[in-house]
Amino acid sequence: MTASAELSRLSRAALDLCAELATQTEVPGQTTRTYLCPSAAQVHATLRAWADRLGMTTHLDAVGNLRSRLEGPPGAPTLYLGSHLDTVPNAGAYDGILGVVLGYAAAEALQAIGPLPFNLEVLAFSEEEGVRYGVSFIGSRALVGTADELLDRLDKDGQSVRDAIRAFGLDETELPGALAEANALGYLEVHIEQGPVLQDAGAQVGVVSSIVGQSRLTLDFAGQAAHAGTTPMTLRRDPLAAAARFIVAAEDLARATPGLVATIGMIEARPGAGNVIPGEVSLSLDIRHEFDAVRDQSLAALLDTAERAAGARGVTLAVTPRMAEPATPMDAELRTGLREAANSLGLMAPELVSGAGHDAQILAARMPAAMLFVRSPNALSHHPDERVNGEDVEAALAVLVHMIQGLARAARA
Amino acid sequence: MTASAELSRLSRAALDLCAELATQTEVPGQTTRTYLCPSAAQVHATLRAWADRLGMTTHLDAVGNLRSRLEGPPGAPTLYLGSHLDTVPNAGAYDGILGVVLGYAAAEALQAIGPLPFNLEVLAFSEEEGVRYGVSFIGSRALVGTADELLDRLDKDGQSVRDAIRAFGLDETELPGALAEANALGYLEVHIEQGPVLQDAGAQVGVVSSIVGQSRLTLDFAGQAAHAGTTPMTLRRDPLAAAARFIVAAEDLARATPGLVATIGMIEARPGAGNVIPGEVSLSLDIRHEFDAVRDQSLAALLDTAERAAGARGVTLAVTPRMAEPATPMDAELRTGLREAANSLGLMAPELVSGAGHDAQILAARMPAAMLFVRSPNALSHHPDERVNGEDVEAALAVLVHMIQGLARAARA
Repeated sequence: MTASAELSRLSRAALDLCAELATQTEVPGQTTRTYLCPSAAQVHATLRAWADRLGMTTHLDAVGNLRSRLEGPPGAPTLYLGSHLDTVPNAGAYDGILGVVLGYAAAEALQAIGPLPFNLEVLAFSEEEGVRYGVSFIGSRALVGTADELLDRLDKDGQSVRDAIRAFGLDETELPGALAEANALGYLEVHIEQGPVLQDAGAQVGVVSSIVGQSRLTLDFAGQAAHAGTTPMTLRRDPLAAAARFIVAAEDLARATPGLVATIGMIEARPGAGNVIPGEVSLSLDIRHEFDAVRDQSLAALLDTAERAAGARGVTLAVTPRMAEPATPMDAELRTGLREAANSLGLMAPELVSGAGHDAQILAARMPAAMLFVRSPNALSHHPDERVNGEDVEAALAVLVHMIQGLARAARA
Repeated sequence: MTASAELSRLSRAALDLCAELATQTEVPGQTTRTYLCPSAAQVHATLRAWADRLGMTTHLDAVGNLRSRLEGPPGAPTLYLGSHLDTVPNAGAYDGILGVVLGYAAAEALQAIGPLPFNLEVLAFSEEEGVRYGVSFIGSRALVGTADELLDRLDKDGQSVRDAIRAFGLDETELPGALAEANALGYLEVHIEQGPVLQDAGAQVGVVSSIVGQSRLTLDFAGQAAHAGTTPMTLRRDPLAAAARFIVAAEDLARATPGLVATIGMIEARPGAGNVIPGEVSLSLDIRHEFDAVRDQSLAALLDTAERAAGARGVTLAVTPRMAEPATPMDAELRTGLREAANSLGLMAPELVSGAGHDAQILAARMPAAMLFVRSPNALSHHPDERVNGEDVEAALAVLVHMIQGLARAARA
């Protein structure tokens, strides 16, 4: 076991580095770092310096992921650690970044203990948030062989992913070299929770049981705009009245269905005058659950409610699917390993579902994958006020190191 | 009784004039005529030509109302007829205008029959829609002595009502001369219904029982914006979920309360992203009823529902009253007169509540006032596709003339 003082020092160094990396940005005064922007190169240089100090071998793969390896015995499999380096606009300092720097911190801690019976590779993914190209996971998709289908996508300036890769000095024809090893030991990702569950439970860290599946849709209700004073209730075709029934039903169903979340984040009523009954209402639905069957059944029930609420008011409903992603359960053995590592350190580590998408769901297609969540004290994320507690970060690093030591013991046995 | 052929000719002339006046506009290609705009002078000239042919004496009063009189015997009281000449932006051809031209048409029909035992004054109000100064009824308020308090209001270019009056060649110090006679016989206004009630009832015309009272408010629900995936239902403070309960309650209560209309015409959810729980929702409430007590009680019940829906979700509610106008019952004798006139012509003339405001509610403070509604075949108003049926306009003119003949008989008796 690594000395507690050393883990404490390393976790403080990791947090200092998060703060430093937050200043490497495309927009002065805030943290904004999209796929392969100039400040990404700055971040790579900063991290590479750490890797170099540890004697890790580091390279950028074809989509710009920074990859640093501690080599194990010849022919040994690889354990991957990591997360992403890109951010949403005006982001906080920890979303993604924390998992990367804790990967390097774990490598340093483990190296101090002695050689591992496997390769350890820290992955710093170039893209996860989907900001620049409207598609997420460009970085981790390269490791599972599905990034090439994104090469022709254009950003708002008309530059393709391929051109962005070349402009960064990389070569998209080398994408096959970015694939993760076929017989990898697994992928472990530390990430801030971005939600209130651990804070509410009084837990410093948690183990992700599953990454939710999610569906996003647009519902367009069309009725008849009319005078708010001269049109009796019985002669109205009010799309907002129908939409409100739907919003209520979404909340009711989600509250009654354990683990289901349903959100209406956007709503627009047109023409939008106080004394005019709306003629058209558009709204968004975002619905997520760890089990696809529950999500599918819930979505069908809600759309049926919307259809009936519309029909009862002479309102038409058009439903446009925008996105549908299946749920991704995390690897059972790795989850157990994380939980046991936490418990042996005296940490409660409740299992929780990740309501947000993460690189782990991509890598899970090719290897065992698991995630450790760090408490978000104010539940804020995608916001400059995103926070972590220092002691929670130290706990997460300890769990990660302890877990990897356990994997090493098992590999040697 | 005037010959039916003559009423038919006059109603066609009235409709032709509506079409002509619709081309006298500030915005070529649409009908847009706000308070004392240049095209108002054009309309005045057109109407004055008709009044001159009839030998009426015509003048503009201090707020720009065009007023044409057929003088009765010395000392006789005055019966007022009319409506307004201004329009909303991109209006139809009939809202307001129809009541003015039918006033002149009635004057012509009545003059052909013989002298009346009272003065007949056609009022063409300069302002009713509230477009230029954000306040309605500048025209009719001059007749009841409440226009002077509006003189300092500014339009979007910073010109006051006073300056607009002077720029039009009028003199606001002559406002006292615009007052309606203290012992007036009454005021009769023909207006399009602007709603679907008569069309739905299969009636060409209807008698207004009361002009609704109305309250307009803004409700601001404030909760906590949060991640749509990582925030469980139990830990949300979702203002849109609370707002939707309120919208449903408004529809339910209005449907269950005869004559009540409640409308949410505007709604905005911020920040307004599909994967973010809204942090703030603002919406408008417009609630109207012919009885103020019903409106007041309904409003209180709805605000209580909103407060409870907010409180149950950790959401705060701020309510801002925007407008509150009491209901105005129409004069019982004049209503009976209109209904009997219609019935004697073989016309069904159901009573209905006016859900919109009209000049008659202003004049009702100073004299008996009543309104005759003309069916709106497509229920459209404040829209270039506003329509009337020719036979309905002819019926309205016949009722108006017949009603005034009845008043004349009563005055002579």
